[in-house]
Amino acid sequence: MVNLTSWIFSSPLLATEAQAETGSLVLAGVLLSLVVIYLAAKLVGELCARINLPSVLGELVGGVVVGISAFNLLIFPDSSGAFHSLILDFLQTTAGLTPEALPSVGSSISEVISLLSELGVIILLFEIGLESDLKELIRVGPQAAVVAIVGVAVPFVAGTTGLILLFGVPAIPAIFAGAALTATSIGITAKVLAELQRLSSREGQIIIGAAVLDDVLGIIVLAVVASLAKTGEIQVGNIIYLVVGASVFLIGSIFLGRLLSPYFVALVDRLQTRGNLLLPALIFAFVLSYIGAVIHLEAILGAFAAGLILAETDKQRELEEQILPIADMLVPIFFIVVGARTDVSVLNPFVPSNQEGLIIASFLVIVAILGKVVTGLGVFGQPGINRLAIGVGMIPRGEVGLVFAGVGATTGILDKSLNAAIIVMVIITTFIAPPLLRIVFDKADEKLEEAKP
Amino acid sequence: MVNLTSWIFSSPLLATEAQAETGSLVLAGVLLSLVVIYLAAKLVGELCARINLPSVLGELVGGVVVGISAFNLLIFPDSSGAFHSLILDFLQTTAGLTPEALPSVGSSISEVISLLSELGVIILLFEIGLESDLKELIRVGPQAAVVAIVGVAVPFVAGTTGLILLFGVPAIPAIFAGAALTATSIGITAKVLAELQRLSSREGQIIIGAAVLDDVLGIIVLAVVASLAKTGEIQVGNIIYLVVGASVFLIGSIFLGRLLSPYFVALVDRLQTRGNLLLPALIFAFVLSYIGAVIHLEAILGAFAAGLILAETDKQRELEEQILPIADMLVPIFFIVVGARTDVSVLNPFVPSNQEGLIIASFLVIVAILGKVVTGLGVFGQPGINRLAIGVGMIPRGEVGLVFAGVGATTGILDKSLNAAIIVMVIITTFIAPPLLRIVFDKADEKLEEAKP
Repeated sequence: MVNLTSWIFSSPLLATEAQAETGSLVLAGVLLSLVVIYLAAKLVGELCARINLPSVLGELVGGVVVGISAFNLLIFPDSSGAFHSLILDFLQTTAGLTPEALPSVGSSISEVISLLSELGVIILLFEIGLESDLKELIRVGPQAAVVAIVGVAVPFVAGTTGLILLFGVPAIPAIFAGAALTATSIGITAKVLAELQRLSSREGQIIIGAAVLDDVLGIIVLAVVASLAKTGEIQVGNIIYLVVGASVFLIGSIFLGRLLSPYFVALVDRLQTRGNLLLPALIFAFVLSYIGAVIHLEAILGAFAAGLILAETDKQRELEEQILPIADMLVPIFFIVVGARTDVSVLNPFVPSNQEGLIIASFLVIVAILGKVVTGLGVFGQPGINRLAIGVGMIPRGEVGLVFAGVGATTGILDKSLNAAIIVMVIITTFIAPPLLRIVFDKADEKLEEAKP
Repeated sequence: MVNLTSWIFSSPLLATEAQAETGSLVLAGVLLSLVVIYLAAKLVGELCARINLPSVLGELVGGVVVGISAFNLLIFPDSSGAFHSLILDFLQTTAGLTPEALPSVGSSISEVISLLSELGVIILLFEIGLESDLKELIRVGPQAAVVAIVGVAVPFVAGTTGLILLFGVPAIPAIFAGAALTATSIGITAKVLAELQRLSSREGQIIIGAAVLDDVLGIIVLAVVASLAKTGEIQVGNIIYLVVGASVFLIGSIFLGRLLSPYFVALVDRLQTRGNLLLPALIFAFVLSYIGAVIHLEAILGAFAAGLILAETDKQRELEEQILPIADMLVPIFFIVVGARTDVSVLNPFVPSNQEGLIIASFLVIVAILGKVVTGLGVFGQPGINRLAIGVGMIPRGEVGLVFAGVGATTGILDKSLNAAIIVMVIITTFIAPPLLRIVFDKADEKLEEAKP
């Protein structure tokens, strides 16, 4: 078989025919995997859109369908490290993949798809930062801050203590699961509000402001808990270092970024070649992502900060338009991969050993919903505001919650049932928020109508 | 160090702390590599734009600068298969990469960057197909076909026979190098014509038509020659199979695609979620790429066909706009990687053993220029047309020529000097065309001015 573009990229060591084939098979496998990912994302995503649910939920469910829980199309190593998937079978039938080459081809495809999904979540957080508005956030600041802090503290404390006291879960996994309950998904919330045309309402602005802040808090919690999980114990110094580090990094990069962004705009205006805005912006995002990673924080934290900074420039609109198709291409890979790696079979209620996981899931869902609904009560100085709508608007969890679940899936911090319970919590809160939000806004409208005549 | 997004994606086997680190280091290394690639592409690309040269040339030269010939920033295995690069040194200093983890981290980063560059060339050919216009091509058909065929045949025959007779090069590498002389770069040519505002002139339309056809011929030649290189001998049956296969695949997929494209448009119009146009288009492009690869042709041939088909639909404009930022992000990776893998040190004239390569390079450059300039003479039925401008417009080689050079770099079909000579040929034809084209169009304008009063 002839495949020049692969030949180019095979290492000089792989000069024999059989090994040149390997490179070409990796490309073929990656192309097939992307086709499977996009088909799953679109099919289930469109289905969700038809029944008024956010399409990101569809991507997650689509991932479960093509992943290890169901059709096993994508290539990931199983618990024994072996690779088998329908794509590998297909490559054996159509493209001449030999059983000897299978492990190395399988591991290469898996590695490339994983890294593409990591780039996907970096682009997603960059886009979320880019869509956020620091000034708006500062304007509705006090109310949004209360909502955000209550919405992080209540589910975290209630979830963690509940898991320890009611279910006897050890401290580390309990804290980890509690932390997974904290962050509202700014992407999902904003999308739902836009669909209901409530984005510019007073409630909408507070929700968005709180969700932005909440996302930042969630990322900090994520870093703190990850450090806990890593060292296996609660190191106060470490937590302080991380909280201070995250704050200094975010605030510092935003402060420095705002100082330097006029030079960025001036530079971009002087560039004449294609990608004159996009590539400098990506360089900036990737440098901050790299710094975020190496100062013991998160790559995605850097991407978010880069987005926030560039959102302040007058290039924001143009850049957002250019990031859109890139996000459309890469972000579904992230959600599908997270879904695909999740083993939802532990939630089958007919298997007795699963019942504990299901009970935990019910508990997490209740805490996740109530813990956010109460946030509306914290809003002050806004008479007549729809407190319930604000609380309900904070319910959907998303990206950050899924990141927790994904970490749990591979590091062994969470057992299978606790990990699956987190996924179920994310799915259900995301499922329930759009219809609930519609109901609470409609109820409020009816009251207004009644008051009028 | 904490890096959750990498943790998610590390295999269950890699559960120990040291190995979880590896995944995070691969992400950090890929981010750094992308920063280096984008910086090189922009810095040298902008420099080229300032002196009126196409920016793609800058990306190639930028790749040479950051690659194995000069600063050795990017990570590729050297001839002994070992990995050393400034990025790996930097990861050791800043991110705690250990000498033990170096080979596996280096090979993973190299593999991911290589696959990103393969996706880059697939997106590039998809975009070129999307920018092509089958109907326009058919309208200026006869003239364009003559220009294209002459422009493929003359450089191929003259180059191959010259290398065999004058330089005693064996048949296979001579045919390979001759084939590298064939394909005009549609991207570069179209860009140069647009810069000169000659895209819609009669000459411009014939050049574009011929360049499109020429690109298709070039891809077929590429597949044929690759088969030769692989089997080591000229198998007529194999060539016929490939020519017929390429023609049937291209014509068949275009025919079927045109039949089915109304359904594609209808489907896209019914989709409601983000990426409703982009993802179906990418699915289509990747499926054709996969088929192109497994029927013993080229993945990029499939991407080109997909672009041509979708260019016929009324979604062409919208799709082109969405592909643009994706191409801006991925295509430079291809050009930089090709440049980075090229060892230009063999062209140092002060090393006696290099002199043969330099003489060959001069010969290839002369054949490459004259072989295309004569194509203008073949234009019939167009009195008063600027034949010289058409010939000069066909001079720039690009993508396909670089693919040949890249294959030569790793498969050992071409020796170092012949391979470097091809790269020099691509660089010089690309360098020389824009100023030459400006001169021949200006000369023609002067004549018109003189004729007027």
